[in-house]
Amino acid sequence: MKETEEIINELIKFRNEREWEQFHNPKDLALAINIEAGELLELFLWKNAEDANKEKVKAELADIFSFAFLLADKYGFDVKQIILDKIKANSEKYPVNKAKGTAKKYDEL
Amino acid sequence: MKETEEIINELIKFRNEREWEQFHNPKDLALAINIEAGELLELFLWKNAEDANKEKVKAELADIFSFAFLLADKYGFDVKQIILDKIKANSEKYPVNKAKGTAKKYDEL
Amino acid sequence: MKETEEIINELIKFRNEREWEQFHNPKDLALAINIEAGELLELFLWKNAEDANKEKVKAELADIFSFAFLLADKYGFDVKQIILDKIKANSEKYPVNKAKGTAKKYDEL
Amino acid sequence: MKETEEIINELIKFRNEREWEQFHNPKDLALAINIEAGELLELFLWKNAEDANKEKVKAELADIFSFAFLLADKYGFDVKQIILDKIKANSEKYPVNKAKGTAKKYDEL
Repeated sequence: MKETEEIINELIKFRNEREWEQFHNPKDLALAINIEAGELLELFLWKNAEDANKEKVKAELADIFSFAFLLADKYGFDVKQIILDKIKANSEKYPVNKAKGTAKKYDEL
Repeated sequence: MKETEEIINELIKFRNEREWEQFHNPKDLALAINIEAGELLELFLWKNAEDANKEKVKAELADIFSFAFLLADKYGFDVKQIILDKIKANSEKYPVNKAKGTAKKYDEL
Repeated sequence: MKETEEIINELIKFRNEREWEQFHNPKDLALAINIEAGELLELFLWKNAEDANKEKVKAELADIFSFAFLLADKYGFDVKQIILDKIKANSEKYPVNKAKGTAKKYDEL
Repeated sequence: MKETEEIINELIKFRNEREWEQFHNPKDLALAINIEAGELLELFLWKNAEDANKEKVKAELADIFSFAFLLADKYGFDVKQIILDKIKANSEKYPVNKAKGTAKKYDEL
């Protein structure tokens, strides 16, 4: 079995034992990702990039991944494939010769 | 090689070709996750959960995953392991007998 | 009329001319605030604090304020009063003698 | 004095007593708005729009307003004016005859 499928299986097992699928519609899963992303952000607030607590980052990042995997599962997305597809699309929006060494958005290149 | 490592390798290849590692400090990666999470959320705004555009969800979710994987790489986290660790911690915060069928937070159970 | 009431009146006039009140339930207004907050955040991504585009900050901040005022109106909150109440509560969580000059959260003071 | 100026004065008084201006650069204030917006969003997670706790909404909304007012002050924005300017711009993006009764984005009208 693929590793991303193994991850999703573990998450679904945890969810189903608690009968939480009834709450996990795509919209609320998108909310959950935002909420967890905000909690990750808080670890960096008023701080330099290197001063966040690593153990707390680990926990918040795990939460973001968990809800992202559950949302991917809702839509039947293959996580590796959608990332590869996005890299391909971004390669066209950000060609190396234009994007190298600059943080500009594609519409400003 | 593990699938999550393959994903990270592809993302790093894309990033390094553009010399973007200089911008990718942990704090700004946390910002990027929040920004992409907001773009995902916008696909559900003023809508029922089932009415978001699936292709757009795919693209925004891929962005969230991409920055989350890059942040995990920054800290040297094994993505599957941190998720399994979080499931274990959540199993104690949300014991099945208390959490079954309810969406309450652990401090309200 | 109070200035915050004048602001809300202008926002409601704009909303009602378009018959958008039907979409503006409190949950989606909370989503809208998050989406606009993400767009504000994007203006600072990969940048130093002073390098965001001021005109764009102005526009995104106006969007955040607009949805925040509309949400306050939904609940009948007096904006000045809820801020003064929160300052009072925060004064107890962050007493001057403990909080002076430190960015620590109240539970770490 | 205008009401929005009174609000800002109270926030600045609270901030300066604690010598927190040193932390309040525009980028971190934008982070703070996002973090508080995420906490507001959490009050609606897995719930219907009308089921959030009103007292908690009041407190989180006050936090969002507070950081938004502090950021407006950083740039010297007149809060009422930037909202009126945005309403004017949105009136052109969303003309009544096209936008009436639909939640579509301006680029889909």
